[in-house]
Amino acid sequence: MNLYINLAEQLGARIEQGLYRPGERLPSVRALSLEHGVSLSTVQQAYRQLEDRGLATPRPKSGYFVPLTRAKPALPMVSRAAQRPVDVSQWDQVLELISLSPSRSDMIQLGRGRPDVSSPTLKPLLRSLSRLGRRQDLNSLTYGCIYGDQGLREQISRLLLDSGCQIPYQDIVITTGCHEALSAAIRATCQPGDIVAVDSPSFHGVMQALKGFGMKALELPTDPLTGISLEALELALEQWPIKAIQLTPTCNNPLGYIMPDANKRALLALAQRYDVAIIEDDVYGELAYSYPRPRSIKSYDEDGRVLLCSSFSKTLAPGLRIGWIAPGRYFDRVLHMKYMGTGTTAQLPQLALAEYLEAGHYQPHLRRMRSQYARGLEQMIDWVSRYFPPGTRVSRPQGSFMLWVELDPGFDSQRLNRELQPHKVQIAPGSIFSAAGKYRNCLRINYAAKPSAEIEQAVRRVGESVAELLAELG
Amino acid sequence: MNLYINLAEQLGARIEQGLYRPGERLPSVRALSLEHGVSLSTVQQAYRQLEDRGLATPRPKSGYFVPLTRAKPALPMVSRAAQRPVDVSQWDQVLELISLSPSRSDMIQLGRGRPDVSSPTLKPLLRSLSRLGRRQDLNSLTYGCIYGDQGLREQISRLLLDSGCQIPYQDIVITTGCHEALSAAIRATCQPGDIVAVDSPSFHGVMQALKGFGMKALELPTDPLTGISLEALELALEQWPIKAIQLTPTCNNPLGYIMPDANKRALLALAQRYDVAIIEDDVYGELAYSYPRPRSIKSYDEDGRVLLCSSFSKTLAPGLRIGWIAPGRYFDRVLHMKYMGTGTTAQLPQLALAEYLEAGHYQPHLRRMRSQYARGLEQMIDWVSRYFPPGTRVSRPQGSFMLWVELDPGFDSQRLNRELQPHKVQIAPGSIFSAAGKYRNCLRINYAAKPSAEIEQAVRRVGESVAELLAELG
Ligand SMILES: Cc1ncc(COP(=O)(O)O)c(C=O)c1O
Ligand SMILES: Cc1ncc(COP(=O)(O)O)c(C=O)c1O
Repeated sequence: MNLYINLAEQLGARIEQGLYRPGERLPSVRALSLEHGVSLSTVQQAYRQLEDRGLATPRPKSGYFVPLTRAKPALPMVSRAAQRPVDVSQWDQVLELISLSPSRSDMIQLGRGRPDVSSPTLKPLLRSLSRLGRRQDLNSLTYGCIYGDQGLREQISRLLLDSGCQIPYQDIVITTGCHEALSAAIRATCQPGDIVAVDSPSFHGVMQALKGFGMKALELPTDPLTGISLEALELALEQWPIKAIQLTPTCNNPLGYIMPDANKRALLALAQRYDVAIIEDDVYGELAYSYPRPRSIKSYDEDGRVLLCSSFSKTLAPGLRIGWIAPGRYFDRVLHMKYMGTGTTAQLPQLALAEYLEAGHYQPHLRRMRSQYARGLEQMIDWVSRYFPPGTRVSRPQGSFMLWVELDPGFDSQRLNRELQPHKVQIAPGSIFSAAGKYRNCLRINYAAKPSAEIEQAVRRVGESVAELLAELG
Repeated sequence: MNLYINLAEQLGARIEQGLYRPGERLPSVRALSLEHGVSLSTVQQAYRQLEDRGLATPRPKSGYFVPLTRAKPALPMVSRAAQRPVDVSQWDQVLELISLSPSRSDMIQLGRGRPDVSSPTLKPLLRSLSRLGRRQDLNSLTYGCIYGDQGLREQISRLLLDSGCQIPYQDIVITTGCHEALSAAIRATCQPGDIVAVDSPSFHGVMQALKGFGMKALELPTDPLTGISLEALELALEQWPIKAIQLTPTCNNPLGYIMPDANKRALLALAQRYDVAIIEDDVYGELAYSYPRPRSIKSYDEDGRVLLCSSFSKTLAPGLRIGWIAPGRYFDRVLHMKYMGTGTTAQLPQLALAEYLEAGHYQPHLRRMRSQYARGLEQMIDWVSRYFPPGTRVSRPQGSFMLWVELDPGFDSQRLNRELQPHKVQIAPGSIFSAAGKYRNCLRINYAAKPSAEIEQAVRRVGESVAELLAELG
């Protein structure tokens, strides 16, 4: 990795963690150059990156300062490295989250990863669904083709250009959500007993799939701003017979970071060197707050070792259950896994999505959701700052609609959920994002829905319960 | 098994196979009693059963005769026993079948197992789909509950009463088609390397799932009228460490038989004795031509060892991809497997189906389809008798919409499909219904669509190509 990125990360992390207070002067360029044994220009590059990220402001003639406007809670810590591959647990906690029916509208579900589906920009999709649903023809009611609808695959091929990927539609397979894409990717690249390296914290669906297929998860230290640690990954690749790396590098769930392009390339190079597959989950990639959207690791892939998994669940509507996979050199195996899991994919939602995309409705919708979620984030951070006890740390999502909250070690977010039950509020306990049940002192909060007094009240309630539980800890 | 059933089977098979010609006198009750060492009344019971099945007619004072009106082609042979568990092959052939798009309407697809979706009795379902598709609410667009929609589960629980099952909705999980139900059932009961006993020929989806999960299939001899041989099964259970029995006992695919109740009970008793799971595929159960529909093995299950798998794919529309599983004592494991495969199931089709069932549209629809398919069968047998070479054997489906055709050993149905390609006709080659690629001399023909000149022409074309290939064999 480049020296300046390294330095910017270290410095950035210190700022985020509150080591320097707002308005405080940061170490001089010269001092840092001496301390780290790097050139002056390397330090300057690092500071420029911090500037871009809003973590440092230059003042003419007097150096760099922590911006005054920053009074956000501190960042979560870099996750600690797991020492060895482990069997995945935590199914009971996941089950609690996914067994709630959406029609239980009495419950404020801050826990699940669902987007806002009330936007008027979804209307054309609903019209297509409705019109196609009325039509009694073989095409929408019978078995589709195992690869998925060609029209939809062509649209997705076009979409992928935005992330820097040139993938012909023939190399794309439609799946039943991103879930099926991930599940097929894991089975296509690994056998039971194999080790999969993962970012940590990490999406519980993948953790559970590894569990079910009898694979082991090796959780790697992950920076809350830049993602999986490449140093740790390299060490792990040296030490363990890792078969695949699974990660969500762009608008990570649950941390919200975007892995820098340089890191994405470096990760791919490592994968090439050690000849392992990369299972890249890009399900939130189009919800990055910055435009144009970041590139995917897949976009740098030259030898087909990246299996790109995604869906319309986060950008449009999860109930459609339509996702896709671009499995590179693993195409045949993935196709077979997909067939044995569910057969062909439902036709109706595929046809409706193809129409929606083709008519150009998708990009305006994305623009709207991106800015709604970016505003939602500001509001949620504001509420958490106000209603949670001091010392609470929160993530800095650069996309999607989920905030990661870290509390004192010793805090128990599973217990928090039980306390919240009578108040009809549910959060996602941190432990489900770890194979080994780490992050019990963390929780994830969804901010997809438009801010409302009801949600504010719910967040406030969570904050109060957190304070009560912390008080018990003493 | 009861003596008389045994005898009726043997005799029936001989009649079906053409050992006795139409109008010929059958052996006397006394002769059979001596030959088989059974009582006169046992023989009489056997004859009464044959009478019920239309295989024997009594003439006062002169005994039993083969009915004159029977001039159907002979039955397929009882499948030969596989000698040992094998790894599953044949993926390429399956892929050819499932990679055709339904919009390729230029192709007469006699190969795939798709129902007729043009019945007016489907209209209320389409109306529900259309209305719900228009509605922009969380309930239909977002993640459902992992178990599936409660309303639909309640309706299915009621439906199951018809097959003799009393299963509360809490014990049912909605799946993405029967495919996912079977896939989850296999993974919940077996590990890679385990042996699964199957009827043979047997549904290719299960064969491929076994392949993908690294299990071995033990194909058991199967009678074209009564199903899996219990004697062979018992021997196999003695000899091999079998983990599960997977079969389609009611309106079997591809053979169309209904396993007699006594055999279903006996199979369950064997499973209990050797402590193995039964994965019962009931996807065609409601399409039995006789009413009321036959009981399922699950209906006799007392200790939760039967995993009942089904869907609305054959009775309503496969494009919906909605199925279910009643996994008995394997509930927790199945649920986990389902979650890791696809997450939750699509909401919209579930809600539409719940409405359709609740409004009472399903039973009239089934009645209509059953009689359409029963008539379709007569027509298809007639065409095959007329257009296929003499010596062609065909199954006697007692439900569903697929005919199994057996030709001389040495015939190659994969080659037949290639010959048919320029004629825009496709059949299902027999080899995909066997783990080891047996039944190359067989093919399966779909007769779901209303008979038409176009289909007649296609069947005639198949018959001609068959004759050409047989002539080459000499
Ligand atoms: C990172 C990540 N990947 C995949 C999924 C599942 O996506 P889908 O609903 O399309 O199966 C989720 C949803 O929670 C997720 O957060
Ligand atoms: C015996 C059998 N089981 C299951 C299936 C698959 O059903 P579904 O389309 O609901 O996944 C089929 C379809 O071909 C079948 O013939």
